Amino acid sequence: MARPIIALLTDFGTRDQYVGVLKGVIAGICPDALTIDLTHHIPPQDVRSAAFVLEASWREFPRESIFLVVVDPGVGTGRAAVAARLDERLFVGPDNGVFDLLLAAQSATLAVSLDNDRYARSERAKTFEGRDRFAPAAAWLASGVALEALGRPVELRSRLEWRKPTRYADHAAGHVVHVDHYGNVITDLRAEDLASMPTDAVVWIAGQGPISTVPTYGAAPFGSIVAVVGSTGRLEIAQVGGSAAQALGVNRGAEVHLRRSA
Amino acid sequence: MARPIIALLTDFGTRDQYVGVLKGVIAGICPDALTIDLTHHIPPQDVRSAAFVLEASWREFPRESIFLVVVDPGVGTGRAAVAARLDERLFVGPDNGVFDLLLAAQSATLAVSLDNDRYARSERAKTFEGRDRFAPAAAWLASGVALEALGRPVELRSRLEWRKPTRYADHAAGHVVHVDHYGNVITDLRAEDLASMPTDAVVWIAGQGPISTVPTYGAAPFGSIVAVVGSTGRLEIAQVGGSAAQALGVNRGAEVHLRRSA
Amino acid sequence: MARPIIALLTDFGTRDQYVGVLKGVIAGICPDALTIDLTHHIPPQDVRSAAFVLEASWREFPRESIFLVVVDPGVGTGRAAVAARLDERLFVGPDNGVFDLLLAAQSATLAVSLDNDRYARSERAKTFEGRDRFAPAAAWLASGVALEALGRPVELRSRLEWRKPTRYADHAAGHVVHVDHYGNVITDLRAEDLASMPTDAVVWIAGQGPISTVPTYGAAPFGSIVAVVGSTGRLEIAQVGGSAAQALGVNRGAEVHLRRSA
Repeated sequence: MARPIIALLTDFGTRDQYVGVLKGVIAGICPDALTIDLTHHIPPQDVRSAAFVLEASWREFPRESIFLVVVDPGVGTGRAAVAARLDERLFVGPDNGVFDLLLAAQSATLAVSLDNDRYARSERAKTFEGRDRFAPAAAWLASGVALEALGRPVELRSRLEWRKPTRYADHAAGHVVHVDHYGNVITDLRAEDLASMPTDAVVWIAGQGPISTVPTYGAAPFGSIVAVVGSTGRLEIAQVGGSAAQALGVNRGAEVHLRRSA
Repeated sequence: MARPIIALLTDFGTRDQYVGVLKGVIAGICPDALTIDLTHHIPPQDVRSAAFVLEASWREFPRESIFLVVVDPGVGTGRAAVAARLDERLFVGPDNGVFDLLLAAQSATLAVSLDNDRYARSERAKTFEGRDRFAPAAAWLASGVALEALGRPVELRSRLEWRKPTRYADHAAGHVVHVDHYGNVITDLRAEDLASMPTDAVVWIAGQGPISTVPTYGAAPFGSIVAVVGSTGRLEIAQVGGSAAQALGVNRGAEVHLRRSA
Repeated sequence: MARPIIALLTDFGTRDQYVGVLKGVIAGICPDALTIDLTHHIPPQDVRSAAFVLEASWREFPRESIFLVVVDPGVGTGRAAVAARLDERLFVGPDNGVFDLLLAAQSATLAVSLDNDRYARSERAKTFEGRDRFAPAAAWLASGVALEALGRPVELRSRLEWRKPTRYADHAAGHVVHVDHYGNVITDLRAEDLASMPTDAVVWIAGQGPISTVPTYGAAPFGSIVAVVGSTGRLEIAQVGGSAAQALGVNRGAEVHLRRSA
């Protein structure tokens, strides 16, 4: 196996020592692992946001990469702790919906419950399973332990309700699923939705529009608001040189409509 | 020696290039070192906060890990720059109190003053000893230089006054020592204090209470405020699904009382 | 070649997955590369700020280090994507001014346009050249591909207008170029400007002064505002134990004067 990669996705923030502690635990078990931060700024306990970031990222990582997800409102309660193999990557985290958007596209080849205490911290607090169970499991996987060894097989399935876009003739209706650091407004409409429209299709968002669809941000004048297919194949609304989210006053959940111009 | 680990703890923030520069310096001296960020968001020059985070973290790291601490209001003045061995880990930083909470539990096996200029940057600014003295010292230790080589032996001892909890029959009184990213309120009371109480013990904080003691966050209803033994063995006050610090309006220093319920 | 280093400088922030995705792409091409974050908190699309941070950092990194700069308001438009060798380091990024401050001190030995698609992502979005072109180019350089292989030679030259300090007899006039995390106010005046003054030289900033020049922050009383030569050889104004930027109400661009005291 090449150098193992563990990608970290948490809501820990970076003010406290929590992320560093996860990495200390990993280094103690698998010193060769390369840890990569996806982000630690998922809003506290926002499982949907974690699911979005994971789905937007995982294909960019090499095969056999391990994703350690710790966004876990139910820490210490009955929700299962799981590890799973999907499409040649490995995923470790709570079974609370963080994997839902992956599961929309493919099933897990194998999922197990993390019940083999041999691969957990010997002293376990009830408030920090990231340190005591999830990070050790990821690190043991990185060091070559088989997924099967971590616990008994379970079925991994979607846990939350997710709104889906609706498609009509010449009209697709969806929602804002994420607002990024630049104020780009990312939707659940896709490149395919845009491709099915005439080239002069426009977007309306939260009652505001029409917004032109363009091939890239930089192609429109400074300050203008445009819709573009972003880097993950989703339709995004952006302001050239500014924040579309601020200009439009929209947040996650806002309605988005893609229509033919006429 | 296995791959050497250098854990970084600073108040540099992450907006500027300062942390990256430390890592560039380390990579130039010891390319094999694995650097792990504990946090760089210690409030500027808050030595007590650094001492807390260090104490909450270091045991989770493998033996021979090196901790590089740069929270240094006195940079460029007379305070000593030191490196020390405590309980099979190495610590590098200013002798200004950042190591106090470690020293409360054990003494240094050996401490030295960083006065051997051979292991410092050749050109030294008076404002960035992190780059010019501390990071090189940590990197040389990582590359196998003996602690003794860095300078002459000194005595490492506590530098600041720290309030201690007081224990009475059926009553322990302490203080808030940290508020974390989730708004969890972390105190200087310990699992042992709770263990010495009846199982229906309650907490009062800043005149507000009674707050029930529970085994884990998730065991109580959404929105409720509970006291729990956290992952470092300290008594914490948390709000299920929210920020206890905000709900209670408390900050570091607030008084905390643990009492029998009746 | 020793372990290759890729230093990252972007305006991506750390809330989204974008930085993690760059590192996933790099790990897929060059698993041995050590990535080091300079900062990802350049204000969105602030090319001048990126140029400042790069110039303040690069000399602290080992020879053959690769700097991957992605601050790119013109993503997807006509501006060139380049890689260059300057003074024994390698630089990859958009040709939009981010390299200007390097070029003020030396010329590139060789610069190329990143037009060889063999060293780019096979599917390319028009909105994320960081992932699709810049990160792959840096990773291929790290894995030993020659700069010449990435594309045809181009001339790398300064792209933006930069104000320069003016020097008179006993008077140097410059500007604030950066405010750091501590509120230190960093100027384009230099150690040499201060050295050319009498030892009791003073600073005026935005009409406020006189501010004494001192050898180090810690040498002055708590709360006092002083001017000091900082760690990159620039004249900085700092408040001991506080934020000079806040105390003085100054931002980037403010005028700074260094004068003899009398």
